Amino acid sequence: MPEPRFKKMTVIGVGLIGGSLAMALRQKSMVGSITGVGRGRANLEAAKRLGVVDSFTTDPAEGVEGADIVVVAVPVMKIAEAIKAAAPRLKPGCIVTDAGSVKKALIDAVEPLMPGGAHFVGGHPIAGTEHSGVEAAFPELFIGRKTILTPTAQTDKSALEAVRAVWEAAGSEVVLMDAEAHDRVLAAVSHLPHMIAYSLVNTVADMEDAWEDAGGGVLGYSAGGFRDFTRIASSSPEMWADICSMNKGSILEMIERFQRRLESLKHHIKIGDAKGLRADFDRAKKVRDSLVEKADDEQG
Amino acid sequence: MPEPRFKKMTVIGVGLIGGSLAMALRQKSMVGSITGVGRGRANLEAAKRLGVVDSFTTDPAEGVEGADIVVVAVPVMKIAEAIKAAAPRLKPGCIVTDAGSVKKALIDAVEPLMPGGAHFVGGHPIAGTEHSGVEAAFPELFIGRKTILTPTAQTDKSALEAVRAVWEAAGSEVVLMDAEAHDRVLAAVSHLPHMIAYSLVNTVADMEDAWEDAGGGVLGYSAGGFRDFTRIASSSPEMWADICSMNKGSILEMIERFQRRLESLKHHIKIGDAKGLRADFDRAKKVRDSLVEKADDEQG
Repeated sequence: MPEPRFKKMTVIGVGLIGGSLAMALRQKSMVGSITGVGRGRANLEAAKRLGVVDSFTTDPAEGVEGADIVVVAVPVMKIAEAIKAAAPRLKPGCIVTDAGSVKKALIDAVEPLMPGGAHFVGGHPIAGTEHSGVEAAFPELFIGRKTILTPTAQTDKSALEAVRAVWEAAGSEVVLMDAEAHDRVLAAVSHLPHMIAYSLVNTVADMEDAWEDAGGGVLGYSAGGFRDFTRIASSSPEMWADICSMNKGSILEMIERFQRRLESLKHHIKIGDAKGLRADFDRAKKVRDSLVEKADDEQG
Repeated sequence: MPEPRFKKMTVIGVGLIGGSLAMALRQKSMVGSITGVGRGRANLEAAKRLGVVDSFTTDPAEGVEGADIVVVAVPVMKIAEAIKAAAPRLKPGCIVTDAGSVKKALIDAVEPLMPGGAHFVGGHPIAGTEHSGVEAAFPELFIGRKTILTPTAQTDKSALEAVRAVWEAAGSEVVLMDAEAHDRVLAAVSHLPHMIAYSLVNTVADMEDAWEDAGGGVLGYSAGGFRDFTRIASSSPEMWADICSMNKGSILEMIERFQRRLESLKHHIKIGDAKGLRADFDRAKKVRDSLVEKADDEQG
């Protein structure tokens, strides 16, 4: 049996993401012992009972004592706070990484908190399910999914390679990206769709008069389209308010780009420009069909 | 063996919808013989080979000769034209119905075309798949799905009951609605989501610079949300340009309602109003969760 790459790993936030990563790394014998840190004792006790962690504490500073690697998988607004609490006890050479879905604002807050000799690497696994908490965790969560790492000028090269090895061991494809590029890409393909979905559901909910005419049961009239949209409108309101705060600039940019597109479509409808409409719809259909082919190729 | 309710049925447009309805009614012994009418001989020959129709013609007037019921399931922009061509040969007492996804403009066009003694009833089955043509048809398509009928002051009561019986025989739940109410409801839950999906895909496609930074493969970064949206952006551009033309007023109303919602969300983000954001997101989540529960109840 070879020595594990990390003698001690600490996971701050043992939920779906943190728990699944701990399970995957244990399976691959990448880690010796795993310590869980969290605020809810019940969740931590479940993590221990399920064998996800070997020990736990509610104190981040105590939890990271002696750790070779610390993974911070708490909600994105709480990451800097957790790292601040842990910082005084990070040992020299310790690698700290996170799983937050916004990177630039987070890195700007976290890099100044790191003590000399400890290394921070920003990360974001593009994975998740509708469930949360350690009981929803499973070691295959990251298989075939992308994980974006966002090194900066300050990032230690060997720490970056270590974090890459962690996510690759969990089955993820690692992509390096500038933090601002990450935030724009995610604003376009994830944050904007969520803003749209929330707004669409609220628009439809506003129309109570129409639903009375229709005898209620809105979803019965939608044949799929509306149902697909509403799924993401069921995501955590707290988390999305946090993301809006932390990725404000890119989200506003994407909403405005989308508003211009929708306004132009509305103009085509208003003036009865069937040719303009078909051109817009054709382009979207071609882009969509090519994206899906690409995704199928990647998965195949 | 009892007499079938309709000795002869004619289906104009033997595609997914027309073909599936023919198959379902034959299974239920609701019809004696079925004649198919269309413009593409290959599709009509397939319909005959598959036993969906007993005979076929490319001439609507010839096809409706002697028919007790005529179902028009061609694209919504072509329905009035097909009925106009068939009208001179509709026999007294013949019932004509359609499956178009816009109702008010259609009914206004069709009612004046009907010869005395023949009866029109507007209909819209909320069902479909991503496939088209008779080879995609199957008799269970309408089971558990709603079909909206939109009678007017001119609608013959017994013709309405006959059309209701047709869709119920196919397994559908029949709902009666005013044509304008239908068009507003569908504009909200179907037409607006399509306009949004097309605009979102085009917004994302505009951002080629960002995808170069990200190394291509947009969908790999989306974890579901964007993928769900793009599915409906793959619908037929021709059909959607037609729907925009025929349901212009309601679609413009819904786009403007949505624009106000999105603008208000953008404002919350801009001024950093986390409380306002959470309130918007919470409302959408509650509405969505209750809609899904209702839909589950209906299906269960």
